[in-house]
Amino acid sequence: MSIKNNFCDLAFEPINGLFPYQPGKPIDELQRELGLDNIIKLASNENPLGPSERVKKAIQNSLNDISMYPDGNGFYLKKALSEKLGVNADMITLGNGSNDVLDVIARVFLSMGRECIYSEYAFVVYSIATQSVGATARVAKARLPDELDAYGHDLETMGRLVSEKTSVIFIANPNNPTGTWIEPDQLEQFIKKIPKHIIVVLDEAYCEYLEPQNVVDTTRWLQRYPNLIITRTFSKAYGLAGLRIGYAVSHPDIADLLNRVRHPFNVNSLGLVAAEAALQDDAYIDKSRELNKQGLQQLASGFEKLALSYIPSAGNFISLNVGEKAADIYTKLLHEAVIVRPIAGYNMPDYLRVSVGLAEENEVLLSALKKVI
Amino acid sequence: MSIKNNFCDLAFEPINGLFPYQPGKPIDELQRELGLDNIIKLASNENPLGPSERVKKAIQNSLNDISMYPDGNGFYLKKALSEKLGVNADMITLGNGSNDVLDVIARVFLSMGRECIYSEYAFVVYSIATQSVGATARVAKARLPDELDAYGHDLETMGRLVSEKTSVIFIANPNNPTGTWIEPDQLEQFIKKIPKHIIVVLDEAYCEYLEPQNVVDTTRWLQRYPNLIITRTFSKAYGLAGLRIGYAVSHPDIADLLNRVRHPFNVNSLGLVAAEAALQDDAYIDKSRELNKQGLQQLASGFEKLALSYIPSAGNFISLNVGEKAADIYTKLLHEAVIVRPIAGYNMPDYLRVSVGLAEENEVLLSALKKVI
Repeated sequence: MSIKNNFCDLAFEPINGLFPYQPGKPIDELQRELGLDNIIKLASNENPLGPSERVKKAIQNSLNDISMYPDGNGFYLKKALSEKLGVNADMITLGNGSNDVLDVIARVFLSMGRECIYSEYAFVVYSIATQSVGATARVAKARLPDELDAYGHDLETMGRLVSEKTSVIFIANPNNPTGTWIEPDQLEQFIKKIPKHIIVVLDEAYCEYLEPQNVVDTTRWLQRYPNLIITRTFSKAYGLAGLRIGYAVSHPDIADLLNRVRHPFNVNSLGLVAAEAALQDDAYIDKSRELNKQGLQQLASGFEKLALSYIPSAGNFISLNVGEKAADIYTKLLHEAVIVRPIAGYNMPDYLRVSVGLAEENEVLLSALKKVI
Repeated sequence: MSIKNNFCDLAFEPINGLFPYQPGKPIDELQRELGLDNIIKLASNENPLGPSERVKKAIQNSLNDISMYPDGNGFYLKKALSEKLGVNADMITLGNGSNDVLDVIARVFLSMGRECIYSEYAFVVYSIATQSVGATARVAKARLPDELDAYGHDLETMGRLVSEKTSVIFIANPNNPTGTWIEPDQLEQFIKKIPKHIIVVLDEAYCEYLEPQNVVDTTRWLQRYPNLIITRTFSKAYGLAGLRIGYAVSHPDIADLLNRVRHPFNVNSLGLVAAEAALQDDAYIDKSRELNKQGLQQLASGFEKLALSYIPSAGNFISLNVGEKAADIYTKLLHEAVIVRPIAGYNMPDYLRVSVGLAEENEVLLSALKKVI
């Protein structure tokens, strides 16, 4: 380029300090880099079952419509969600994955001078969304690693960070990448104490993996806490990460605000029909939950045999402590055609996050791990 | 809800004044409302040919991958675009439609206290994106309706609005909803005069519809004007509105900044493969351009027979003046099972925007119009 320009000087200042999200390495990329075949990716908490037949059929039936814009209001998907969840359709905001919803919440309720609270080791999108609008993050120290709920949200500490500048609190339950989970009673006690002018975001991306006896219908809380926003996704248990569909459930007035910033066609048309079909497929979710439960046990017992400590997880992944050579071990696993997720970016440099795969994939991971450590 | 809260008071102030984008009415919605069949939608500048066979095949071959996250870097699509356009892949930023790209540009380069310049009657997303980040819009009066390029961008006026607070200038060429087009020489003269610290966004969503003799390869300008960003989309001539793929071409340092705010998985996986396939299908684009040319002539001559004036268009739509009863006529057309686009929101209350359809669809529109005016 002939003319020099320092474009960073031109950008909204907080953007300059922003580090882009580091996704799990795509299989294609590893194939290109190392020329490997039969690669196993356990790096992005995807559903190892692949999409359900019902979903694929719904997409095939809609292929001729892709030259038309999606329904910007997502009428049919909102209707299906509304019936499934027992909430009014005007309480639902659709997003291009729940990442989009979380970001829209930040754009509506945060700005320069406002503060956002979230926990250390919490999902990194909270930090990116906060910084991109120039708001200030107040990060609550997690519990000490030697406590029972190591790395989990410390709600007391989070509560103490509330100030007159606080506008948003993000809570992930279960949390990614730690897999920690807060008991519903304890969580509700926390939400109850938060002043009603502060938005509390409860990110339930992994809620479908909870043991049924641990599930509380948090959408009922919305009537008591109108400042609550619950976010969920079709990317995990529903097996639709590639199609990008997430949603928020909230007071309709909050939904109205979110819809002003949301891009009018943020969810693509095949995503809309796929999510609607996925929502009808309870058997797929049950199967996914059962497979995950067995996989968590398989991995945990494998890690124990290798004398590796890990954080007990309520999600579809486990973070395990492989020590200070974690980056090395990650790379060696790549050469064994296994992709896992380094989480040094979460300030957990000794840990690798492993998504639960099919039984045979988990086995390959455990064998490769045994080989490289 | 038991507890009253005025959520608007909690929102970032500029969001409160934001009016959501008004999309064209979906066919489904009109079906539900009026119980009509055989509805024709000429409201959203979609490609009436429907998606190409090549695209549908590419999607079908990728259906099993939708449970995995998309490649956040869009490696293969960027490679295909890079080869097609003759630019480096690091100059490309992918978006969830070009709406996403335009919004990301606003988030990076605009903020409270900064100014953005665009033309009256320009694409409404410029205004929404500007307001959502709290920046100030400086709207340039368009040329007078009795001039040759009625409703078109008045570049002189736009240039006069440049101040020390100006950070971004949006130019749509051709422009939606007016269909007006600025000659490349004139446009380049304008860009040349803009100080290099101001980002000039050239939105070419409709460029594939230009007569080949009018096309200048504006990506060549990037070497002379590093402050230029060109945006394009797969939603119009490429026939992929439902899948949401747009992109920007810019200096790599600008692309780096845009990528910090862009959601990591903003383009869905079927969109990526569909766009890559569409890009190889020159015959489809040629056919679409030719069909559009004939359709523009058909509509223009039909409007003339009805003694209706219209704005000559370089896009795949025409805005026609139906007088002060435009809203009425729009509703009457709905009852005739024809959806067009009212553009009172663009301060053009006497106009309706009609997208170019298949010859038989254009004919139905003209007959319905004759009936209702």
